[in-house]
Amino acid sequence: MKQGGDDRGCVLLGVDPGTAVTGFGVVSVDTRRQARLLQCGVIRTSAKAPLPTRLMEIHEGIAALLAEFEPAALSIENVFQGKNVRSAITLGQARGAIILAAAQKGVEVVEYAPREIKKAVVGTGAAAKDQVAYMVRRHLRLRAEPRPSDAADGIAAALCHAFTGLLPFHEARQAAERPA
Amino acid sequence: MKQGGDDRGCVLLGVDPGTAVTGFGVVSVDTRRQARLLQCGVIRTSAKAPLPTRLMEIHEGIAALLAEFEPAALSIENVFQGKNVRSAITLGQARGAIILAAAQKGVEVVEYAPREIKKAVVGTGAAAKDQVAYMVRRHLRLRAEPRPSDAADGIAAALCHAFTGLLPFHEARQAAERPA
Repeated sequence: MKQGGDDRGCVLLGVDPGTAVTGFGVVSVDTRRQARLLQCGVIRTSAKAPLPTRLMEIHEGIAALLAEFEPAALSIENVFQGKNVRSAITLGQARGAIILAAAQKGVEVVEYAPREIKKAVVGTGAAAKDQVAYMVRRHLRLRAEPRPSDAADGIAAALCHAFTGLLPFHEARQAAERPA
Repeated sequence: MKQGGDDRGCVLLGVDPGTAVTGFGVVSVDTRRQARLLQCGVIRTSAKAPLPTRLMEIHEGIAALLAEFEPAALSIENVFQGKNVRSAITLGQARGAIILAAAQKGVEVVEYAPREIKKAVVGTGAAAKDQVAYMVRRHLRLRAEPRPSDAADGIAAALCHAFTGLLPFHEARQAAERPA
């Protein structure tokens, strides 16, 4: 398995899952955990399409991003609260298609609670949605906030892992520092 | 896409999804809606394995059944109630992996509410779990009830479509009966 990035860093894919709209952000991170945006956007499925088609579109969209950017990890929000059981099952189905795409490519999946993502990106786990978009823009030195907001949420998941996770070059350093 | 079965009927795959245990049943149905069991069992994943691995095992297990039996449809219970949001998301993820496998093979996915399945198999939507297993045994003229119960639930989903659904040979007949 190839690891995303070069000697100076690695690439991460962050995903905000949904059956209708799945937001994503691809960032590169250097060894000082400075992040740069490579791409962001949304995978939008047709509300008129049957569920199997929509799940296949999400799966193919994520697989295409994994093939193009070869990220070291896919970071995804780990939600365990929601409006109701119906919407939770719907969300779970989209998550299943996304996580499966990563597993099939041998890409590590990392999960973060919404509070962890807000804490890492904004500094407080109780941050509002606007603050997340604002700080995503600041961290990545963008001219404007990423649109739509689902894309910003995908980027935020990637940034959370970039700022707080164990990245490939950290693992490599740990291994090098270990006595032989 | 090949359609399961021969001139006299078709093959259906019924699935009872779960991250730990996914039950399944493969039945053939003749034009009089008489069903015969071809295979049943469970896809069991290791509780110690990470979620991506478990979803991949479920996906591969279903894909293997689709490749072996080439069913005309995959029938799955459509649950919209559950203990809580956490278990609903978990169930949704397994459903996503299963439905995706069918979509990728071009196999139609049909969904039935738990009450519809019980009504079709037992005669009442309020039937207990034991009654479903008992009637699955009777319908298929088996010597014993299928074990584990997840397998029986998978078969029940297949039987519901066998007894109440629009099957390929019905569609063919409808087309033939339509004036040219």
